[in-house]
Formats: sequence, C-alpha cells, structure tokens
Amino acid sequence: MKEFFPQIPVIKYEGPGSTNPLAFRHYNPDEIIDGGRMRDKLKFALAWWHTMCAEGTDMFGSGTMDKSFGGNTLMETYENKAYAAFELMNKLSVDYFCFHDRDLAPEGATIAESCANVKHIAGIVKELMAKYDKKLLWGTANCFGNPRYVHGAGTSCNADVFAFAAAQIKCALDTTIELGGQGYVFWGGREGYETLLNTDMGLELDNLARLLKMAAEYGRAHGFTGDFYIEPKPKEPTKHQYDFDASTVLAFLRKYDLTKDFKLNIEANHATLAGHTFQHELCVARINGAFGSIDANQGDMLLGWDTDQFPTNVYETTLCMLEVIRAGGFTNGGLNFDSKARRASMTDEDIVHSFIAGMDAFALGYKLALRIIKDGRIDEFVKARYASYSSGIGADIVSGKATLESLSDYAHSLGDVKSKDSGRQEYLENILNSIMFDR
Amino acid sequence: MKEFFPQIPVIKYEGPGSTNPLAFRHYNPDEIIDGGRMRDKLKFALAWWHTMCAEGTDMFGSGTMDKSFGGNTLMETYENKAYAAFELMNKLSVDYFCFHDRDLAPEGATIAESCANVKHIAGIVKELMAKYDKKLLWGTANCFGNPRYVHGAGTSCNADVFAFAAAQIKCALDTTIELGGQGYVFWGGREGYETLLNTDMGLELDNLARLLKMAAEYGRAHGFTGDFYIEPKPKEPTKHQYDFDASTVLAFLRKYDLTKDFKLNIEANHATLAGHTFQHELCVARINGAFGSIDANQGDMLLGWDTDQFPTNVYETTLCMLEVIRAGGFTNGGLNFDSKARRASMTDEDIVHSFIAGMDAFALGYKLALRIIKDGRIDEFVKARYASYSSGIGADIVSGKATLESLSDYAHSLGDVKSKDSGRQEYLENILNSIMFDR
Amino acid sequence: MKEFFPQIPVIKYEGPGSTNPLAFRHYNPDEIIDGGRMRDKLKFALAWWHTMCAEGTDMFGSGTMDKSFGGNTLMETYENKAYAAFELMNKLSVDYFCFHDRDLAPEGATIAESCANVKHIAGIVKELMAKYDKKLLWGTANCFGNPRYVHGAGTSCNADVFAFAAAQIKCALDTTIELGGQGYVFWGGREGYETLLNTDMGLELDNLARLLKMAAEYGRAHGFTGDFYIEPKPKEPTKHQYDFDASTVLAFLRKYDLTKDFKLNIEANHATLAGHTFQHELCVARINGAFGSIDANQGDMLLGWDTDQFPTNVYETTLCMLEVIRAGGFTNGGLNFDSKARRASMTDEDIVHSFIAGMDAFALGYKLALRIIKDGRIDEFVKARYASYSSGIGADIVSGKATLESLSDYAHSLGDVKSKDSGRQEYLENILNSIMFDR
Amino acid sequence: MKEFFPQIPVIKYEGPGSTNPLAFRHYNPDEIIDGGRMRDKLKFALAWWHTMCAEGTDMFGSGTMDKSFGGNTLMETYENKAYAAFELMNKLSVDYFCFHDRDLAPEGATIAESCANVKHIAGIVKELMAKYDKKLLWGTANCFGNPRYVHGAGTSCNADVFAFAAAQIKCALDTTIELGGQGYVFWGGREGYETLLNTDMGLELDNLARLLKMAAEYGRAHGFTGDFYIEPKPKEPTKHQYDFDASTVLAFLRKYDLTKDFKLNIEANHATLAGHTFQHELCVARINGAFGSIDANQGDMLLGWDTDQFPTNVYETTLCMLEVIRAGGFTNGGLNFDSKARRASMTDEDIVHSFIAGMDAFALGYKLALRIIKDGRIDEFVKARYASYSSGIGADIVSGKATLESLSDYAHSLGDVKSKDSGRQEYLENILNSIMFDR
Repeated sequence: MKEFFPQIPVIKYEGPGSTNPLAFRHYNPDEIIDGGRMRDKLKFALAWWHTMCAEGTDMFGSGTMDKSFGGNTLMETYENKAYAAFELMNKLSVDYFCFHDRDLAPEGATIAESCANVKHIAGIVKELMAKYDKKLLWGTANCFGNPRYVHGAGTSCNADVFAFAAAQIKCALDTTIELGGQGYVFWGGREGYETLLNTDMGLELDNLARLLKMAAEYGRAHGFTGDFYIEPKPKEPTKHQYDFDASTVLAFLRKYDLTKDFKLNIEANHATLAGHTFQHELCVARINGAFGSIDANQGDMLLGWDTDQFPTNVYETTLCMLEVIRAGGFTNGGLNFDSKARRASMTDEDIVHSFIAGMDAFALGYKLALRIIKDGRIDEFVKARYASYSSGIGADIVSGKATLESLSDYAHSLGDVKSKDSGRQEYLENILNSIMFDR
Repeated sequence: MKEFFPQIPVIKYEGPGSTNPLAFRHYNPDEIIDGGRMRDKLKFALAWWHTMCAEGTDMFGSGTMDKSFGGNTLMETYENKAYAAFELMNKLSVDYFCFHDRDLAPEGATIAESCANVKHIAGIVKELMAKYDKKLLWGTANCFGNPRYVHGAGTSCNADVFAFAAAQIKCALDTTIELGGQGYVFWGGREGYETLLNTDMGLELDNLARLLKMAAEYGRAHGFTGDFYIEPKPKEPTKHQYDFDASTVLAFLRKYDLTKDFKLNIEANHATLAGHTFQHELCVARINGAFGSIDANQGDMLLGWDTDQFPTNVYETTLCMLEVIRAGGFTNGGLNFDSKARRASMTDEDIVHSFIAGMDAFALGYKLALRIIKDGRIDEFVKARYASYSSGIGADIVSGKATLESLSDYAHSLGDVKSKDSGRQEYLENILNSIMFDR
Repeated sequence: MKEFFPQIPVIKYEGPGSTNPLAFRHYNPDEIIDGGRMRDKLKFALAWWHTMCAEGTDMFGSGTMDKSFGGNTLMETYENKAYAAFELMNKLSVDYFCFHDRDLAPEGATIAESCANVKHIAGIVKELMAKYDKKLLWGTANCFGNPRYVHGAGTSCNADVFAFAAAQIKCALDTTIELGGQGYVFWGGREGYETLLNTDMGLELDNLARLLKMAAEYGRAHGFTGDFYIEPKPKEPTKHQYDFDASTVLAFLRKYDLTKDFKLNIEANHATLAGHTFQHELCVARINGAFGSIDANQGDMLLGWDTDQFPTNVYETTLCMLEVIRAGGFTNGGLNFDSKARRASMTDEDIVHSFIAGMDAFALGYKLALRIIKDGRIDEFVKARYASYSSGIGADIVSGKATLESLSDYAHSLGDVKSKDSGRQEYLENILNSIMFDR
Repeated sequence: MKEFFPQIPVIKYEGPGSTNPLAFRHYNPDEIIDGGRMRDKLKFALAWWHTMCAEGTDMFGSGTMDKSFGGNTLMETYENKAYAAFELMNKLSVDYFCFHDRDLAPEGATIAESCANVKHIAGIVKELMAKYDKKLLWGTANCFGNPRYVHGAGTSCNADVFAFAAAQIKCALDTTIELGGQGYVFWGGREGYETLLNTDMGLELDNLARLLKMAAEYGRAHGFTGDFYIEPKPKEPTKHQYDFDASTVLAFLRKYDLTKDFKLNIEANHATLAGHTFQHELCVARINGAFGSIDANQGDMLLGWDTDQFPTNVYETTLCMLEVIRAGGFTNGGLNFDSKARRASMTDEDIVHSFIAGMDAFALGYKLALRIIKDGRIDEFVKARYASYSSGIGADIVSGKATLESLSDYAHSLGDVKSKDSGRQEYLENILNSIMFDR
C-alpha cells in the first residue's frame, strides 16, 4: 500500500527527557494508568475534516496546504484521504476518528449520489478499521456547508431543506451504525438566526426538536445504542446559534423531552466563545448527567472566533481531565481533536507536531489531574467548606425539612451571621502550581 | 410637606417640537394608545436603589452625589428618601417603584432590627402610595451587599448564611405582599463562584432551588398572587453567576420544577453582558412562556461591566417594545428603570433629565413598534418566509406525521434542494429605518 | 452593451414618503446641501471586492452567490465584472470605486502576467470611467490572500516575499495613477504575527516602514499627488496586526517619519474590533491631522469578527458625518462601502437594497449632522464646558506660562477645589434623539 | 514595636518539595541567579493601596476585610499601615514598595493639609526604609478618586482642577524624591471621556501633555533622576482612557516630544483589557526603547474589568520574564504587585498566601525563562526564520539600498515566489511545554 507520509516514522514514547520532536514525552499508549491503558482512558480521535481536508484557507486567504493526497479524480482523492488517515492514526497511536458525511466523501448531484459516495468510502474505512484496529468515536452529517443550509437545516424556513437534512442525517446515522460508531453528533452551525427581523424563533426551535426526535427514534429502531450528542456553540458562522452553551441545550432538551437520548459534546473553544471556561461547561454537563464527549482544542482568548488550535495549555488539559475523572471517565465519548494546524504550519510535519503537542498536553494533564486527586488537599478543602450542610440547620435545608419560616426563626435566634470563611483562591492556585510544576 | 426638588416642576408633555429640557416630547401619560393609557401600557417604575441611594461611587472613586436628603439621622435619611421618591415619581408621572429591603431601610444589628426598619419605612411608603396613587411593581431582598454573602446566599457554603437569607427574603416578601406588589424578584449577584477550585456546583444549585421553592411555597401560602421573577445576569460582581441568561435560568427552572411560579425579569445590560441582544432575551422569555418584567437600561457595548445607563437608543427601545407587544403586553410586570445617572451627571436636574430621556425613548419606541406592526411589511415578510410549513411536507413535519425515513424518501424524490430565498436583512433594516425616521 | 442587471432600474430619489424598495428616500445626488451637491459631499464608492467578487462564502460554508457575470473564461469574467460594476454604479448614482489588484484582474503564473492582467482590465475601466463619469477613490494591492503572504508582505520573514509585494504594489500604484486615483491604501491584514514565539517584532516593523517609504518615494516621483492611507485593523485574519488602531498607526508613522505622506483610512467595523467607537477613531484621526478616508460599514457588536455589514444604524452614520464635517469634509477621501450583502441576501436585488439602505443611512446621517450643528445646543454646551481655559489660570496653562510650582501655589491659595459641573450626558443624548427623531 | 501579623512567621525558602503553605518553593531571595541575587533581579514591590488599604469592596458589596490596623484615629490608622507594611515586606522578603499619596496618608480639608499628611507619614516611612533596608520603586499621586476629578485631572474641563492636580503631583513627586524613589508613575484613570458628545478631545490631550511636561521639568530641576512612567489602561473607570495601550502612549509621547523623560509601566491586566497579551505590551515597550516597569497581576480573560488578581499563571510569568531578560533586565523599574487578594480571601493569611503564590510564580517563571534561553531551540528557530534578510536582496532591503523599482525588477526576475517556510507554532509550543514541565 502506498505510504502517504514516508518521512514520518511511527511516533514512539521516549519520555520527558527527549528532545526528539517526533516522539511522545508523556503519551505512552499502553502504559497502565488509573487502572487501564492510557489509550483507553484518553480515547484520542482524529477529526477527519481538519486533518484530512482543511487546507489552511481563511476569510482573507486561500489554502496553504495540499490535501489531495495525490488523487487524480475527486473520488480517488477521498479514497486516498482514508488510506492517509489510517496511516496517520497508526503512526500516532490515535485509536478513534470522527467524520462528517461531507469530509468522508464528496457531495453528489443528488442526495442518492451523495449517500452512495459516503457508503463507498465507508466500505474502505471499515476494512481499514479492522486492519489497523481503529474505531469510530462518532459520525455526523454536515448540514451547514452547502448553500441550501444558508437559513439552517432543522431550523430552515424551507421545508424541503428540512427534509433534505433529514435524508442526509439518515444516511450519516446509517453509516455510523454500520461502522460501529459509539456516538452521533449534532452541531447546529446554521441552526440560529442572522437577524431577528426575519425570524420566527418559536417555530424554528420546535422544528429543530422535531428533527432531533425523528433522528433518535430512527436510530433506536435501527440498533444504535450509543449516545446522541449536541455540541453547543454560541455563534459563528451564524450570528446567534440556538445551541449557545451547555445550559441552553439542557433547557432545550428538557423542554422537548429529549434528555434520555441526548448528551453533550463539549468543545473547549466553543465554551470560551460563550463566555465560559472549558472546565465550567464540562462541570455543567457532569452535574446534569449530560457529560458525553469532548472536542479537544483551544482558542485564543483575545480573538472572537473559533481558532480550533491544537491544545497545548497544560492548565486547561489538567482541569479538563479532572472533570473527566469526576464524571467517571469516558463511556461512549472520547477526546476528539477538533483542532487544526495553523495556516502558517503548512507541512505534514506540522500535522504530526500538532498531534504530538496536543496528545502530550492531555496525557500530562491526565497525570496531573490524578496527582491532584491523590494529593487530596484541594478536595479536602472543598469538602470542609460545605461541612455545615451535613448536620443541624444545614442538614434540614438539604433534606427539605426546613421552610422559609423555620429558617427565619432560626436566623432570628442567631441575630446576625458573619461569614469569615476564606475562599482561599490564591492558596488553592498555589497548590495547583506546586502539583503541576514541583517534582 | 417638605419639597426635596423645589427647582423641578411637574414634568409636562409638550410634544416633539419642544426644546424645553424639562418636558416630555413623547411620553404623554394619559394619552390613549393601542387601547389604553400610555402610563398603563408602559408601567414605568423608579428603582429605589439607583435613584434614591446611589451616590456615584465607582471602583476608583468616591461619590459625586449627596443622597442624604437632609436627614440628620440614618432613619431620617431613609424616611426622607421615601418622601423624595414619591415627589419625584409624582413630578415625573412614574406610577410604579421597585425596592430592595436594604435601599428602603438601613440594616440593623440583627435580622429582627433590620426587618423592623423595613416595616417602619414600608408604613410610610404605604401612605405615600395611597396619597400619590402609586404602585409597587416588585420587591426584593438584597442578599449580595453584606459581607456575609461573600460566598452567596442560597449558594453559600455556610448554612447559617442560607438561613439568614431566608429570613431576609421572608421579610421582603411579607413587605411586598403588604404593599400590594405585583412581583417579587431574585437577582443572584453572589449566586455563583469565584473559582471552580473551591466550588461544589452541584450542591450549590440544588440549594438555590431549595431556597426558591421555599420562597414560592411561603408566598403562595400567604396570599402572594403575583409573579416570582429570576433576573439573569452572567457575571459581576461574581466571576460566574448561575443565572447566566434567560436560557440558563429556564434550564434550572425546568430541572427543579419551578416553572409554574417563576418568570423572567430581563435586563437590557445583562443581556448584552451574556452575549445576547436585549431583544433576543425578551424573545427567548416570550416563546417559553416566561416573559415577566423588564429592567430598562442600556450598557456600553465596548465595556465589560454593567453600566446601567438610562436607555436612549431608540432602536433598542423600539425592538424591545415590539417584543412586549408580541408577548401581549405587561401583566404583572413593567418597565423598571434599573438605570443610574452617570457619575459625572451629579445634579438633581440630571436625575430628571435621565428619566425624561429614558421615558421618552421608550414612549417613542412604543409608538414606533406599533407603527411597525401597522405597517405590516416586516410581519408579512416573516409569515411568507415560513409558508412552506403550512402545507405539504412542511405540514407533515409540524404535525408530527413525518419520520426520518419518510422525509428521506421525499428528499430522494426531489434529488436536490437549492435554497435561494433571500433573508433580505438589508431590505428589512431599511424598512425599519424608514418607519423610524421618515415622517 | 449587455445589461447585467436588467431587472434593476436606475434608482431614483422619491423622498421619505416612498415605500418603493428600489428608490432613495434620502440620497438625492444632485440636491445642494451644505454648499455642494450631495454626491460630492458624500463621495460614495463601490468596493470592487465585495460587490463584484464576494460570493457569500464563510468559514463554514461555500458561496451562495454567482459573481461570474456570465463569463466563459477567467478573463472574460473579470471583464464582465467591470461592465457590471459600472452599470451598478450608474444605476445607483455611486460616483467612485475602489479596487485591489486581485479583484480587478486574476492573478497570473508570474508577477509579469499578473500585472499585465491588471493593466488589461484597467484599460477597460478607464474607458468606462470616461463613459459613465466615474472616478477612482483609491487603489491597493492585495498582499494577503495568496499563500506566499502567509507570514506577511512587508513583514514577511522571507525577503523574496517582501520583494514580490513591492512589485505588486508598484503595479497597483501605477494603475492607480493611470486611473487618476486620489488615494492609495495599505491594509496590512497579514502584517502582524500568529505567535510571538516565532516573531522578531522589531525587525518586522522596521521592514514594514521600509516598504511604505519606498512606495511613497516611488509614488511621489511618478506623479502621485493623492494621499497614501493606512487602514487600521487590530486582528483577523492575523492573530495580532501591527496597524491595530488609529493611535497605533500614528505611533508607527511618527517613529519612522512617515506622517507627511500617510493618512488614515478608518473603517467602522475595524474600530469596534479594536475596542473603540467608529466616532472615536475618526476623532483621533482628525485631531492628529490624519483624517483621510472612510470604509463605511458596520459590525455586530456581539461578534468578534469583521462582518462588514452595510451600514444602517443612523446613530452611527450621523456621528460619523459630524466628525467628517468637523474635519472639513472629504478632500481626497470618501465613503467607500467596504460592506457586503449578507450571505443569506444572495440575489442581485439584495445588492441594490444594501446600497440603498447604506446610502440612505449616510445621506440621512449627513442631514442630521448638519441639523446638530445648526441646532447648536451640543456645540454650545461643549464650548461652555471648557471656558475656564480661556482666561486666568486656564489661559496660563494653555499658553505655557504656568509651571508645576505656579499651579501648586495657585491651588494652595484656593485650598480646595470641588467640581460640580455636570457632564450632562443624558441631557445631551436626549437632545440628540430630539434632533434625530422629532420633526 | 507592635507586631501586626503575629501569626505570620518570616517566610522562608523551603524548595519545590515543601507543602508548607507559609514557605517559598521557588523564590530564594539571596540565591544567585543569572549573575545576581534573585531579589535584585525580580525587584518585587508591595502596592500600598491594595495591600494596606483595599478592604474587599466591590460595586455590589461592602468590605470583607479590616485594614484599620487597630488605629484609633485616622492618622494613627495610616501610621499603623506604614508599620504593618514594613512588617509584611520584611516577612515576605519584598524589597520595594509603591504608593499613591492618598493611600499613604489621608486627604485633608485643603491641599496644604493633604500634603502635610503625606509628609508626616513619609517621615515614618523613611525611617522604616532605613531600618528594614527597603526601597521605594515609585510614587504617584491619586488624581482619580476624589469627586473633583470626575472629569479628569490633566484633562479636566475645569482649569482649577488641573491646577489642583498639579499641586498634588508636586507634593507626591517631592515625596518620591525625598524617599529616593526610582520612578514616578502617571496612571490616567480619569484622563479620558465618558461620552464624545461633551468632549473636546484635542484640547484635553494638549492639556495632558502640558501637565506631563511641567512635571518632568519640575522633577529634573529638583534632582529626580529616575524614570517617569505612563501606565496604559484602555478603560475603567472611564469609558475610554487616552492612555489606551503602549502604542497609543507612544504616539502621544512622540507627538508632544516627551519620549526622553517618559517610559512605560506595563500592567498585565491592562494589557488584556486592551486586547493584547501581557507579553505583547512588554515587547512593544522594549522594541521602542520604552520598557520601564511592571505592574504584576493577572486578569480573568472572561471578565471585562480589572480584577487585579495575584499572578499565578506560570505561562504568563515565564513569557513576561523572557521579555524582561531580552530588555536587559530592570534598571529603575521592578515587579510591583498591583494585585489584591480576592474579596472572598479576607484574612491576613490570604494576603501572605497571595504574595507567596505570586512571588513563586514569578521566581519560577524567571528560572523557566532562563532555561528557554539556555535551551536555545526557540531563539535559534527565530534567527533562522529571518535569515534571508542577512544577505542578498534581504540585506539590500534592510540597508535601504533597495527601491520599489529595484525590488520589482528582482521579483520579475523570479517570476513567482511561493513561501512554504512553516511558522511551526505547535512545534514551538511543544518545546515550551517540554522546558516548563519536563525535569
């Protein structure tokens, strides 16, 4: 079989001392950590769209990278993407991948042709999955790129577009099931509005719920036992997107009784665009029983758009993995690198450097998160902080025994309450630094 | 009775031609508009805290205004605030007011003393309400200013603080009922976290729900038939507040089964701090049956904090009133000016100028919103835009008859769908301008 | 000659009462206003790139519009763009246009070929200018779209790229001179950095200054008597751009002694991305003698990228024109619509609606700005506010007679100073509303 | 002498292994590093206002901390602040401090009384400096807190206010000289505008320059040989501040010919509020020969106001120290902790924890910055990246030999230029992580 990255060796773990740019310093796939192999704990996934398709275009410039992989026809190009993807995954010890229908295979003149294209490539992918022992983390349908979705898919003002989206989702969901995918994602990049002047928000949201319900019913009837995910994002490309953030999606799922089938796919860069930390969104998902999967990347906090950078901030990866551990680890979800090498990082080596940087940042973050838990100082502080709810009036509040009147009587008996329990933020940040940097 | 603003006359309507800075050009309280008196449609309210108490301090400077109203003792000062407030409301034809316990009356050494203070002033207020024919729009308890609430009230890590908040809320709610208030607001300025490192978000939110449930049960048992409101705000003073925006609050209310008693009090400046337009938040409230009341002000879109400026942007007031009309107008809610004269606008005249500017901006906005509806071009465009859901496949989608498979079959029969229905944003914005400016 | 927009009539002025969407309500090109024809005062320009080339792509979707104008070859397409552009300008009474080399003509395989292409189209344009009596507001070279500029042009790490940029600028400048252009713009979309980790900021800025100096010297030696402009923008596409805002550019021009030849081209949407109002940037340019030209558009204050919307906010257009009037009106500059119809506004009618909306918003804004000046209340307030600098100690300060010691002595003689001169913001905003809305 | 923090021991260095919260793990004051003592390289300073005065108020709540230090009179309180400050500095091995006149001593009824107060406390401070071997990093006058400065100081619309500011600055500058201060800072928190509607920006900036010039002339005539600094901040408390960022200040200094006397005091949190990284602002100062001193803190990137948190992000401290090293280290400047313990961190222990956290973060950052330089990979990459400017056409560009025409000829000889030199951002970020975390 043709090798697409002949200059790239299989990336090996060489440990923290290594200065080899083509080696892992923290990710050691088969090392046992926290009771399992690191690769099974982190469940890294390659995002087909960025890695196999994105060519470095931006709104002011054309592509800097060639992702044709030597294909002479459109279909051959997409076939080659598949071979190249598995070569990369193999060389990087990335065990999972994620796809949209439209990055897996080219759109045809009709929905039938498009779906046939997807199935053709999926056949090749299925063989490669078996050959390389790789798995599908999740699939999805791209219902945002084609001009027909200019006004949305499930929220389009045009019922034919809604139907077309349904057809595309059916095909992508069938493909996900066929490839044994553990998840199916809805990212509503066009589900929102450009101006309220032309928008019936009530109807649009009702329709969106209808589409999701249909998809869940179809999936369950056809053997899909994985999770459906909604991926929140507040804006871009649309001026305002309905799936703004984790809480907004929870409000929607609860309104339309969709919580049983749908969980959240949290993306770091989408969290910050919505005004939250990555950790906040993960925590909201966790405490609401909706933690599903993660799109791993990082944004630039001074930029107002989705930069999808490979994650290298170890504070972020550590606090992320702390939430993942608290959520009980991944079940159907994993860490999908919804990240792209910078436009100015245009070589194949850059792709590999990017994955190494991101995977090492997460492997290190995972180890540091475990160290935080083992250290115990932070958790003990938090436990002690809320101790007053374990007995007396606090226990009455938690148990539901207290009423506004009984609490008022109690407060009157106290006369006044002064709280001087320090929150100790700086102390805790210093502990975090000591765990992260001192060893 | 002593006159506190002797230089301020009763503000009269003089119409658009007037250059008298102490006259209304659009607000004509007893003029009939849309089937009712303008004053009953707009339901303007004075916010006791800003107008009677705020002295122009900011984080880098002390007060520029004197709000002691000649009081020689603390209690006399608060009594005078009441007399001055009603003089102002009378001179401005503002029919409603809103209060926190702590701006109505000073905090005492004990909760009992504090509550007695509130009741003392409330007694005076009740007489003034009768004398001047004014009403209470809503009351609330300030559970954020005192250092005891540094870690929150309903979300405090200290159960005694929770109990103290309950006592304070009971007193404020009793006072609201006593004064015939139509609403009771919860603004959770300290309900949130400074750092996730020390926070048990799950427990905190459960506790917050417990507090709200207790308050609603108590209120309903004691004759409160108005609306409870939650006022969303994403941040400030707290790093992250749980009542982030309208959707986040809806997710919370649905989780804890509180939707029956609680509606939303939407503030313009809080909307923009959360990354939404004012109109967006109003629309979200409306389509979810949770539209309650409005805190009218405007922020500075280039500043990252709550400036609480008096609202003078007529685009904003027009689009706000359009949503209010679509929501069926106010029932228990109204337009509370949660606005303060700028620190550099430190005279009594500035307070009056500020109210006039805000009231005229809303009165004009209301008239323009009615004109938009009467004009019909925008509504007709929107109706036509979604026409495809009224018959055929669209009607099947809306009725629930369609399935993913039936829609897929339909899409296959079409082959392809191209959407070329323009959203006509610029055309609609031009119509909006023509309605607003051409007459 | 082929008509490209047969369904679009010549747009006529019908006045404020008109509901004809294809008519002006405020822009009456030959009406005399403030001593001249409206068209000569506003100097509207069509931006070739958006209007003739932009097809509605965004980072998540392909084009919704066809801008091939029926061309069968690449060159024919560009020839047709020229014919279509002048047809549009004619029908819209837009008297000026602006171009980049690369939207005027396609890039060739070599710089020689590219420049020949530009000259070919420029020849056609020159004839059309004469035929339709249209003028070139400014030209520029696109030194950001091609991958060779991935690291910048004047700030590229590659000297060959710098040289290539110089060649491209020479050709664009020659063309500008040939077409009688009154300005030449530098927009440094790639002049900046992606990460400081790989950047020598000092060298890059020195080099940028070298490029500008060369261009100015060449231009002056070859008969260019118009203005060179730098167009500030803080970010996008680059993470951080050197021409961040007006003040940053002024610091740069002063450092490298370039103020004689260079003025500023202020764009509304760039101003807000940099954290300033549009009016602020215009005012900074004016008081520093660097006011040049304007890129007219508007952004969405809740979005973090350049939306380049057609300007329809009349507050913004009014305050912009107030600054233009204060700057003495346009000399070489004008109002270039660096604006694009929304992706969802994909028809030819939308282009026309967009221009009408923007032109009417500016024509109305101009009239309102004149009305503000005629009304006089705002200017009088400002004059009175600073009156203390006209005599006494204030005059000593302004004249340079005062010293720190003399002022200290004076202050000691006063003992204390209390300032109670209200800034009257709300009063002034209300006056602004009265001028804008009451007539 | 009374001990104010009896429970706080002298903080000792115990090294990275320590879990003692009252010990340094990285800051070892007398350890030799990079050719000097760590304390002389880092030059940590205590900010009098936050540490000795700030009581934890915010815009929505009153103070949580008592900073009266047992004083029974106002003056005794301020005397005690001085004793307490030096006790703290001594226990923390902080060698410098910074003050405003108004946090050092209380304002009197007249400027004479205020200045006498400052001199009284300065006398005590001078003795304590000698006793504890501590130094003054810089002094300044608070020309923003008193209501008289509501419209600015040097930019006030009231000439008497300008004169009063001059008097206050004279006194603060005299005191700085008396205490041997190495710097004098201007932070223009009120030098800006609230609304352009009432502002004459040109006059205000001219006046500001006049004030700075007077101060510099006075200082130089009275023996001040240190640096004058301007501290940029874009906004807060004022809507728009004239000293927006480093570049804006440079434009101002160049316009008014003030570059000889004035350098920049860069604050981390002000940098991010202006849309820049801390490192960016430091780099701008450095390459313009204006690097002076640093206000060390960190903001919350999701909040739009100055949080002044103690700096604990080691990425930030590392990149900051890298710039400091590149600038040749501190001369007159140093690292002033313009940081405050969180409102919820209200105990004396929290102050100490905060300093330890910040000092260790900077000491570690300094060591890591030195390690980056010693490692050499990043610097080598940057050097190689710009190699093309060392010879051939690049050298011609740098030397000024090249012209637009000569470069155009050269480019024509090349025909085309394709740049495929990767910027290697991810590779460099991975190296940074390896240096920071792997040891």
